[in-house]
Amino acid sequence: MTEKKIPYKIYIEEHEMPKEWYNVRADMKNKPAPLLNPATHKPMTAEELGEVFCDELVKQEMDNDNRYIPIPKKIRDFYLMYRPAPLVRAYCLEEKLQTPAKIYYKFEGNNTSGSHKLNSAIAQAFYAKEQGLKGVTTETGAGQWGTALAMACAYLEMDCKVYMVKCSYEQKPFRREVMRTYGADVTPSPSMTTEVGKQILAEHPGTTGSLGCAISEAVEVSSKDPGYRYVLGSVLNQVMLHQSVIGMETKIAMDKYGIKPDIIIGCAGGGSNLGGLIAPFMGEMLRGEEEYKFIAVEPASCPTLTRGKFAYDYCDTGKVCPLAKMYTLGSGFIPSASHSGGLRYHGMSPALSQLYHDGYMEARAVEQTEVFKAATEFAKVEGILPAPESSHAIKVAIDEAMKCKETGEEKTILFGLTGTGYFDMVAYGKFNDGEMQDYIPTDDELQIGFNGLPDMSDIDE
Amino acid sequence: MTEKKIPYKIYIEEHEMPKEWYNVRADMKNKPAPLLNPATHKPMTAEELGEVFCDELVKQEMDNDNRYIPIPKKIRDFYLMYRPAPLVRAYCLEEKLQTPAKIYYKFEGNNTSGSHKLNSAIAQAFYAKEQGLKGVTTETGAGQWGTALAMACAYLEMDCKVYMVKCSYEQKPFRREVMRTYGADVTPSPSMTTEVGKQILAEHPGTTGSLGCAISEAVEVSSKDPGYRYVLGSVLNQVMLHQSVIGMETKIAMDKYGIKPDIIIGCAGGGSNLGGLIAPFMGEMLRGEEEYKFIAVEPASCPTLTRGKFAYDYCDTGKVCPLAKMYTLGSGFIPSASHSGGLRYHGMSPALSQLYHDGYMEARAVEQTEVFKAATEFAKVEGILPAPESSHAIKVAIDEAMKCKETGEEKTILFGLTGTGYFDMVAYGKFNDGEMQDYIPTDDELQIGFNGLPDMSDIDE
Repeated sequence: MTEKKIPYKIYIEEHEMPKEWYNVRADMKNKPAPLLNPATHKPMTAEELGEVFCDELVKQEMDNDNRYIPIPKKIRDFYLMYRPAPLVRAYCLEEKLQTPAKIYYKFEGNNTSGSHKLNSAIAQAFYAKEQGLKGVTTETGAGQWGTALAMACAYLEMDCKVYMVKCSYEQKPFRREVMRTYGADVTPSPSMTTEVGKQILAEHPGTTGSLGCAISEAVEVSSKDPGYRYVLGSVLNQVMLHQSVIGMETKIAMDKYGIKPDIIIGCAGGGSNLGGLIAPFMGEMLRGEEEYKFIAVEPASCPTLTRGKFAYDYCDTGKVCPLAKMYTLGSGFIPSASHSGGLRYHGMSPALSQLYHDGYMEARAVEQTEVFKAATEFAKVEGILPAPESSHAIKVAIDEAMKCKETGEEKTILFGLTGTGYFDMVAYGKFNDGEMQDYIPTDDELQIGFNGLPDMSDIDE
Repeated sequence: MTEKKIPYKIYIEEHEMPKEWYNVRADMKNKPAPLLNPATHKPMTAEELGEVFCDELVKQEMDNDNRYIPIPKKIRDFYLMYRPAPLVRAYCLEEKLQTPAKIYYKFEGNNTSGSHKLNSAIAQAFYAKEQGLKGVTTETGAGQWGTALAMACAYLEMDCKVYMVKCSYEQKPFRREVMRTYGADVTPSPSMTTEVGKQILAEHPGTTGSLGCAISEAVEVSSKDPGYRYVLGSVLNQVMLHQSVIGMETKIAMDKYGIKPDIIIGCAGGGSNLGGLIAPFMGEMLRGEEEYKFIAVEPASCPTLTRGKFAYDYCDTGKVCPLAKMYTLGSGFIPSASHSGGLRYHGMSPALSQLYHDGYMEARAVEQTEVFKAATEFAKVEGILPAPESSHAIKVAIDEAMKCKETGEEKTILFGLTGTGYFDMVAYGKFNDGEMQDYIPTDDELQIGFNGLPDMSDIDE
């Protein structure tokens, strides 16, 4: 097949869309470590997890064996509303860079939630609905996950209670209004609607909240009403599973045109996008069928993979959720006020952490000013204003393309463009005004987070 | 062809994309009236227009004869960046409404400018560049047109000077930052950078500006520097021509699947979207080949077609631009502070005005609360948060679908979904809070606008 025939945008046909999710854990020799009960340090049982997640999601969370999980028809119908997502050949960027590299990106931002989060939101809401539940609760910081969940719940006519970190609630009123337009009940956190919220407000009357506090409120509300479950937009095995639709579609599109990527790049916060994008390619590598170079890109201000520890840790700052074995900076790590939004998480998907630990993946940390520089360059030639998170992947994709320019290699580079930056213009404004600063935590600062890791000496890791 | 085979989203192939724009004026028996010099009331000559627009655009503006105008390769390359736009079968909306009607919409919002404006922005910037000009100037209110022009200029590496109405500049900082990210020079209007701006600021020190004032500043800047031309995002014949790409793509997609629309609906402000969407269908009707029902939808607060006069009028409140014969509420008409953004224009494309006058098109005025109700309903089932402008078309499409439900008719309805509402969340917020009000001007209020129409008794209309 000649290169000429590859269009700017590859849309697979609707009948070609994946009918199954791919479960990378089935092909991993070293499985991700189980979630532990934070009180007993014993593996969480299905019953215990069932108090937090609905039953089908518990099964998916614990399933390390089944390679493929069928996507229910109702979820596939919802996917048809905004998928297939285009696989874009970045001809304009290639020309601008004058690189012999061939650059592709899977664009997940062409839906109202503005990111890939919708892929798992609809799945989690669907299984809750199937179980006869009335609704779901969650927290949101930047707001992409909350918006995605609100959209999914509107479609399924379910209740959606979102605890939004108060400073975001006030600073991002548009995100809040999108959620409300989709019928979600959005509460600024901390609030007087929960015991934990009241307690925090009594202790810190002027606080503008934190993600940890919002999680605690969302979990409390779901735990007190058997008609609700708590849902989460990243980190979990089930989320990686649902997000595999990104990679599956990408692979189908590439196979149609005989394209094989040499390098696959994704930004990494909790790992939902990266895990989804690389899933089927990683599967081929784990089965020894193909070789790929995978690169996880994280902010230098929150360097989970590049400078974190591989250890059991709390998933939330409130320490109410199960313990996960993952790369972590410690649940007490406080990232600087960077603009990488969804990437400011102290931990990382246990499955991705294991793969990274076992040497299947590289990681790179990049600073935000160079990320926004790449984002602006990309926006001008490719016509899409990328989310700051996605722009981490753009930065490294450009770096790799420039290496090809030096060496003359015609490598094929694939990266994930997870979303759009329409709600991140405050950050772009700071960059445009030259007021954006970089921040790299010192070893001493990281040590504070590590000091808060739970004592796991009672278990045999 | 069975209905089953029609996908949710029809994307034509890149090689099927239009290579020509369609000029509806070529098929009109009664041509739109020429633009007149506001001082002499004589038709503007090509030379006079050449002081405002670059030469190729003057030719397009005055060309009532050539049915097809080739789209230059460079513009088609740019179109490939964000086109083809999907033609969506609104299966989910149909199911929600339980209507036998088949509803389709052409979605033009999947690009960073958030609307169809990019189709003409790249064309106008391209011809200016071809003529060796350094840049273009324009005004923007809501910001969609300014954003589109900034994107086009960034791609072509041209200067872009945008005068943004000061109140929008302050209330819509995100729009401003998107333009700046694309390298545009954005100035709040009125400003001290122009004579007219200085004069207005001296007279009204605290003013937050108006579109009329911003136009005057943009025109002044371009008139003082031969390296610049002024460009406009709607109303003009050239804009209708460029926007015909919307309808051409739609028709190609429909023809592929043997779909024939019975009713074609578009929102109408200056007419750029409506004119573009209906162009090739209107051509068939004008040539007597097919019958369609065309419906222009406008806000009841700014009822240009339904309650305006068909007369020569000023295109701008500053009265510096040529006179156009069109449906108008008078250049002095001040629409209420509604949220229909781009639809708050006192006039209408001369070509569409003539077609409406000659009975080829219907018009309907709708109130904003019912528009936002339709928008919210649409967003929940179709997953796209529509722009307020576009939602006028949604409202009437739903009305027509509900009529089909009553009569049992299986009509095919096509409407234009011009853009997304991410930058309109203040309006959605007001609607969500029940604080949105409707406003219909009284006859006396409209009379004030009509009183300001120019005295044309010297010419034989």
